[in-house]
Amino acid sequence: MKWKLAARSEKMNPSVLREILKVTERPGIISLAGGLPSPRAFPVSAFADACAQVLGTQAEAALQYAASEGYGPLRQAVADMLPWDVDPAQVLITTGSQQGLDLVAKVLLDPGSRVLVETPTYLGALQAFAPMEPEPVAVASDGQGVLPEDLLAKAAGGDARFVYLLPNFQNPTGRSMSEARRVAVVEAARQAGLPIVEDNPYGELWFDQPPPLPLTARHPQGCIYLGSFSKVLAPGLRLGFLVAPKSIFPKLLQAKQAADLHSPIFNQRMVHEVMKDGFLDRHVPTIRALYKHQRDVMIEALRHEMAGLDVTFQTPAGGMFLWLRLPAGIDTVELLPHAVERGVAFVPGAPFYADAADSRTLRLSYVTASEEQIRSAIAALAETVREQLAHQAAARTEQLLAAEPAP
Amino acid sequence: MKWKLAARSEKMNPSVLREILKVTERPGIISLAGGLPSPRAFPVSAFADACAQVLGTQAEAALQYAASEGYGPLRQAVADMLPWDVDPAQVLITTGSQQGLDLVAKVLLDPGSRVLVETPTYLGALQAFAPMEPEPVAVASDGQGVLPEDLLAKAAGGDARFVYLLPNFQNPTGRSMSEARRVAVVEAARQAGLPIVEDNPYGELWFDQPPPLPLTARHPQGCIYLGSFSKVLAPGLRLGFLVAPKSIFPKLLQAKQAADLHSPIFNQRMVHEVMKDGFLDRHVPTIRALYKHQRDVMIEALRHEMAGLDVTFQTPAGGMFLWLRLPAGIDTVELLPHAVERGVAFVPGAPFYADAADSRTLRLSYVTASEEQIRSAIAALAETVREQLAHQAAARTEQLLAAEPAP
Repeated sequence: MKWKLAARSEKMNPSVLREILKVTERPGIISLAGGLPSPRAFPVSAFADACAQVLGTQAEAALQYAASEGYGPLRQAVADMLPWDVDPAQVLITTGSQQGLDLVAKVLLDPGSRVLVETPTYLGALQAFAPMEPEPVAVASDGQGVLPEDLLAKAAGGDARFVYLLPNFQNPTGRSMSEARRVAVVEAARQAGLPIVEDNPYGELWFDQPPPLPLTARHPQGCIYLGSFSKVLAPGLRLGFLVAPKSIFPKLLQAKQAADLHSPIFNQRMVHEVMKDGFLDRHVPTIRALYKHQRDVMIEALRHEMAGLDVTFQTPAGGMFLWLRLPAGIDTVELLPHAVERGVAFVPGAPFYADAADSRTLRLSYVTASEEQIRSAIAALAETVREQLAHQAAARTEQLLAAEPAP
Repeated sequence: MKWKLAARSEKMNPSVLREILKVTERPGIISLAGGLPSPRAFPVSAFADACAQVLGTQAEAALQYAASEGYGPLRQAVADMLPWDVDPAQVLITTGSQQGLDLVAKVLLDPGSRVLVETPTYLGALQAFAPMEPEPVAVASDGQGVLPEDLLAKAAGGDARFVYLLPNFQNPTGRSMSEARRVAVVEAARQAGLPIVEDNPYGELWFDQPPPLPLTARHPQGCIYLGSFSKVLAPGLRLGFLVAPKSIFPKLLQAKQAADLHSPIFNQRMVHEVMKDGFLDRHVPTIRALYKHQRDVMIEALRHEMAGLDVTFQTPAGGMFLWLRLPAGIDTVELLPHAVERGVAFVPGAPFYADAADSRTLRLSYVTASEEQIRSAIAALAETVREQLAHQAAARTEQLLAAEPAP
């Protein structure tokens, strides 16, 4: 039986991450790899109350087909919680913010058109864009994200459709854009007439002070904003949202309707029920405190265990991830199996790059594992690094000896 | 601000159905239009128990990220309930069966390639395929669905990728394929080397006897099978599934992962909990009985109210829909506003045709409205038809008189 596949299916590949993470699923492994929120942050009893309420008082509507745009009161709640003037008619409820990426790609990307991305960038976005066959173009980035001058240069080359940016506590690097950088990036995008797709799943998870205003708040007609309930409530409900200018909202809505008719209305009503009466204002600070503490534990462990090694990282001001650069000579893809042998898993940095990867980098999550686990995992990781460096030194010595004339 | 849209976005249009149905949302209208399951069939207390159970005993896993393939025990339950040998590894849980159509389109359709469809066919499938820019080709169909000889002819012309078939109680016609037709259609597809995408959302809703075996059961290597929990449990949870040959399963899984990471695991675990211990075996017969009774009420009302009019229909042996053909001269798109004025809504047939539409047709759902509502809606519809016929007769008489020489 012959199945002729679409040309685009060749662009779709198994997540490298997923393949890598398979080796980490052995029992006894401490995983700092996955981007899984801490289950300690799931408001289970609030969900239980909301379920009972929804099935007790609105079961018929919660179990029936519903509008593709999403549940009206939830769209209103989203508009109300965003720090700029948003009409609920611009809010589309999505099946996780990952679906927002799929819809944006369908509506904006042609085969061969360009999508500009940070370097490195969120792997799931590259995967969501790939079926629409764009050419991803990496914009030079520093510890704050893309450089405005390179954004301008890359926007000018080829048929660029949008730049995909994650300004707060980025996945994978944990970095954030300062106020000044935001101003400059928005100005560059405006000047180039280049739309921005702003992804903000982690923005609420700040530790010491809230991040500067989103890019979209500064340039609402030129931006699509993606948000998520996964990090402030729970990912297992698969609810996110997008905010789009009214000019392109209808196309995104049509793509949404064709994709899955609507996101589960039961989940939407449940989340709306949970959010009522300012629940997030009480709940999210507990997640911030938990994650900040876990970040501190990881940083302390890194400083202690990696002492003397040429290891660099930037302290994340929020979110879930820390990006580590190991000493010269270490390739983190090659390091991973050795680390797994010592009982610790991480994500090598290479898959996150749309262009030439820095093979010394890796991503660590400090939110899923416990304090104790973080400490022993970082110790095991440091041992693995030292062992690899020792092996390499030994191999170099052997090569030198082999090169000596025989006695 | 310029937003350059992808070429495919021009193929994406607001659902004609949706636009049509907007006029039906006035209070006091009895809608026979939407394909909404009867809320009387929603097992609310079973859901409430399942919610409590899931949040009480497995909250952490139910609220966390999960595997893109779906929840293992639910995949197993799907494999177990299908009447042919299915490996759970071939089952992908989708966000409603609508998502199955989106994934199949992404993986199999190139711009300009052909997708063969019944005439008329499910509008949502045409919408799901449209963003991938195929050419839909209507296969000649009778009261049982596609004609095997025309399927062979259409499969031979152009770059046909699959035929989309809905063999049980089809949306919109309510028609079903007999055993003999299934044998002939599978043989034709096999002979043409043409894959079949078999959509079976209504198969469990049979009235007097179960339908013949699915096409996929007869030719598993050549078919993708789509199923849904929307009609046997509730649509508001957005859960469906697909079964694919192992050779193309990985591509569908990659498309799924890029589209929304995974379907809500909370909903999956809830549905698995509800289905445990043979719940569907007890619950689905109550839906069958309810819908059969409502079908009978509608047919009796049609026979009574439409007596003397040239109105034809086929009695559906299951499912939710009845397809009506009105007297010559009536265009159901033009009829709709008049029907709405009399307090009844239906769906005109035209949007369901990929080729030349039969403008005398319309779709009625007998499952959402109550018995009393069905009776008064059919009476109102018959009055509308008679009124339109009388108007037309009067207009013809006037034309004739106008053509008479002046006295």
